[in-house]
Amino acid sequence: MMTTMTTMRATTTVSATTTRITIGNRGRSSAVVRGTTPRVNRKVEGPPSRRGETIVRRNTPAGVGRKTDDPMGVFRLEYDVSQDEVHRPSTWKPTIVIAVSGAAGQISNHLLFKIASGAVFGPDQPVILRLLGSERSRNALEGVAMELEDCLFPLLREVDIGIDSRKVFENADWALLIGAKPRGPGMERGDLLEMNGQIFVEQGKALNDVAKPTCKVIVVGNPCNTNALIALTHAPNLDPRNFHALTKLDENRAKCQLALKAGVFYETVSNVCIWGNHSTTQVPDFVNAKIGGAKATDVIDDIDWLENDFTPAIQTRGGLLIKKWGRSSAASTAVSIADAIRNLVNPTPEGDWFSTAVLTDGNPYGIAEGIVYSMPCRSKGDGSYEIVTGLEINDWLRDRMQKSQEELVNERNCVGHLIGEYGAACQILEDTLLPGEM
Amino acid sequence: MMTTMTTMRATTTVSATTTRITIGNRGRSSAVVRGTTPRVNRKVEGPPSRRGETIVRRNTPAGVGRKTDDPMGVFRLEYDVSQDEVHRPSTWKPTIVIAVSGAAGQISNHLLFKIASGAVFGPDQPVILRLLGSERSRNALEGVAMELEDCLFPLLREVDIGIDSRKVFENADWALLIGAKPRGPGMERGDLLEMNGQIFVEQGKALNDVAKPTCKVIVVGNPCNTNALIALTHAPNLDPRNFHALTKLDENRAKCQLALKAGVFYETVSNVCIWGNHSTTQVPDFVNAKIGGAKATDVIDDIDWLENDFTPAIQTRGGLLIKKWGRSSAASTAVSIADAIRNLVNPTPEGDWFSTAVLTDGNPYGIAEGIVYSMPCRSKGDGSYEIVTGLEINDWLRDRMQKSQEELVNERNCVGHLIGEYGAACQILEDTLLPGEM
Repeated sequence: MMTTMTTMRATTTVSATTTRITIGNRGRSSAVVRGTTPRVNRKVEGPPSRRGETIVRRNTPAGVGRKTDDPMGVFRLEYDVSQDEVHRPSTWKPTIVIAVSGAAGQISNHLLFKIASGAVFGPDQPVILRLLGSERSRNALEGVAMELEDCLFPLLREVDIGIDSRKVFENADWALLIGAKPRGPGMERGDLLEMNGQIFVEQGKALNDVAKPTCKVIVVGNPCNTNALIALTHAPNLDPRNFHALTKLDENRAKCQLALKAGVFYETVSNVCIWGNHSTTQVPDFVNAKIGGAKATDVIDDIDWLENDFTPAIQTRGGLLIKKWGRSSAASTAVSIADAIRNLVNPTPEGDWFSTAVLTDGNPYGIAEGIVYSMPCRSKGDGSYEIVTGLEINDWLRDRMQKSQEELVNERNCVGHLIGEYGAACQILEDTLLPGEM
Repeated sequence: MMTTMTTMRATTTVSATTTRITIGNRGRSSAVVRGTTPRVNRKVEGPPSRRGETIVRRNTPAGVGRKTDDPMGVFRLEYDVSQDEVHRPSTWKPTIVIAVSGAAGQISNHLLFKIASGAVFGPDQPVILRLLGSERSRNALEGVAMELEDCLFPLLREVDIGIDSRKVFENADWALLIGAKPRGPGMERGDLLEMNGQIFVEQGKALNDVAKPTCKVIVVGNPCNTNALIALTHAPNLDPRNFHALTKLDENRAKCQLALKAGVFYETVSNVCIWGNHSTTQVPDFVNAKIGGAKATDVIDDIDWLENDFTPAIQTRGGLLIKKWGRSSAASTAVSIADAIRNLVNPTPEGDWFSTAVLTDGNPYGIAEGIVYSMPCRSKGDGSYEIVTGLEINDWLRDRMQKSQEELVNERNCVGHLIGEYGAACQILEDTLLPGEM
């Protein structure tokens, strides 16, 4: 921290790019803005200019000074951001806005601090964090914002908290959609699809209307593949290729188990793809995996283990962790979200790939179009990706990939009314579990 | 992650320095060792040599294959660590052992992943994590170890879990003592001191007997100052100057509030000392604090705010966070523990200092000897510290520093029977709260 402080000492005010969410400038006089970024004015009306003689921090307690049509009012802070361009380190990139849903939850509690520390987007990338919660989680959101303040992260230029996705997603460069409701007792998979699907209709529309058109979206809330499909359907202003459902955690788990079996360190395991749905039908691909550059199936000469131990172990690892922990794995999920982001903002090493569930339209593996299905991808490091072609799909893989595809097609049919597709029957053939369910 | 993987690709086996805790070599055939570090042998007897043809990972379920006199048996993994010196990157430092108590708790859940990622000890410092829990938390400990595996951290060479401090602390370079029982309903502060004091008697003895004599100890479990005093009293083999109680979180909170008040970024606030006990009698020193190199009292020309708003706000911030969150602040505490470690392993910037509670023997401020009291310190970056002399102590500070000292002397009197000092009366004059209590 001390070291960091020294290098950051030149910076004293907040990024000019944050003007877009500074309250006074947007006319949202009771929006929630919680400050990690001082140079605070008593009042800011109109575009920022050289004010700032009087510095006042103003926290408006919940319910005070809030307009009823603006549900975001918990805190209120107003910034003078006019001098930031003068004071910020010249090596820093322009500030980016990262919106996180389910921000009061356990996964976010790990992820937000990781992002704010610079460990995800890099030590030269200042960030604004936008925390989306619910009315019920308002106090917890405030607590998270206060804890983020207490950490003195230099790159964290601002924290906003709110419960309206149309405000929280405004101008977002990244939307990490972590919030979703867990399956309740006696609830069918179809019920879960419906309940969470509604959330992603709203969030897709909000992204469409207020996020940057280049916004990258990673859906973590389950059932994440179909939630991502719903969201992208309602966000025609955004490139559908910018929507992902998280399967990086499954890839990490697969690499770990292959490494342990082979008796090598993790980093010698590469080219591991998770195919399909982030459910127990997912297919961890050991056929194309490599260990120390050689085929994993040559290094681990035990096809019975690969098919009958390794594969179900990865498919059900989330449930096993819930049994151990009493709750789903938050820390490793947060790490895998960070990994998924880094996969997109750093060039993929030559010859390797990573797993992410993306829209299947135009895919080279004959997978049904119109679903979000995990496939091997590469990135140039600019946030985009391309699907890697030419992987060997043997009969064993093909059968299982087909089964996961059928599950996703059925999920789509079940939420047809949420994506404007009517007529298909909702047939949940088998009530498969999410990896995080028991 | 991908980038990291590339740089780490040369490494395939585990640090030679880990031989000291490899089970077969220690004759502890049912000790808990959970592997992030493969090259696993069916059996390892005696010192490591060039074996390793047969690679077997062996998980012994709880209760299976455990000796009753060895409570550590949950997992069992045996490593061949003989080839690590050949394969590890030449730029890496020797592996260090970090023991963490309360490892199944919320603070540890943040801290362990931060340490394993390299963010605390640096990108060239491989680590072994030793997780100390309780019989009750055994499953949760396993869950943490599994999640750590799933994160594929290259620097994390091994994870051990256990419930016996005499095994978990073995050869530890660092002991982060986070676990302590919270005050129950109707419990007096004296009761809390007694209950947790007993834990730190045991842990002090264990550190004395099995940790490295150079082991650095940071006590976080409350009441942390007196717990640290108890532990160091029972560890005469360790330098008492290597024991710390955490006040870095309080320092961070104070810096944040001064920055917000002054309308500057955090990193311009320096020279903030927390004096005294990590309780509501703590004294956040605004008299010697600097903002942008100037005296904080010149920048913030509002002594009433500094004395009557700022000071109690820092003293009670922990309680406020509990009200918001419903539980104590875990993420920011973990970040401050990381900061406290970095304060000791990096040279302190010229002219600055950090806060840490240490033994007062020989202190230059006339503070009573024989207690653990937070003072301004500097480090050369070698893990040691010196107390900074010459701070201005005005009457306002002196009065409050005295009050916190009295509290600590009383705490010592109350645990006299735990540190071999009999006769002094246990007089808790005022039932002050811990910062994390409501």
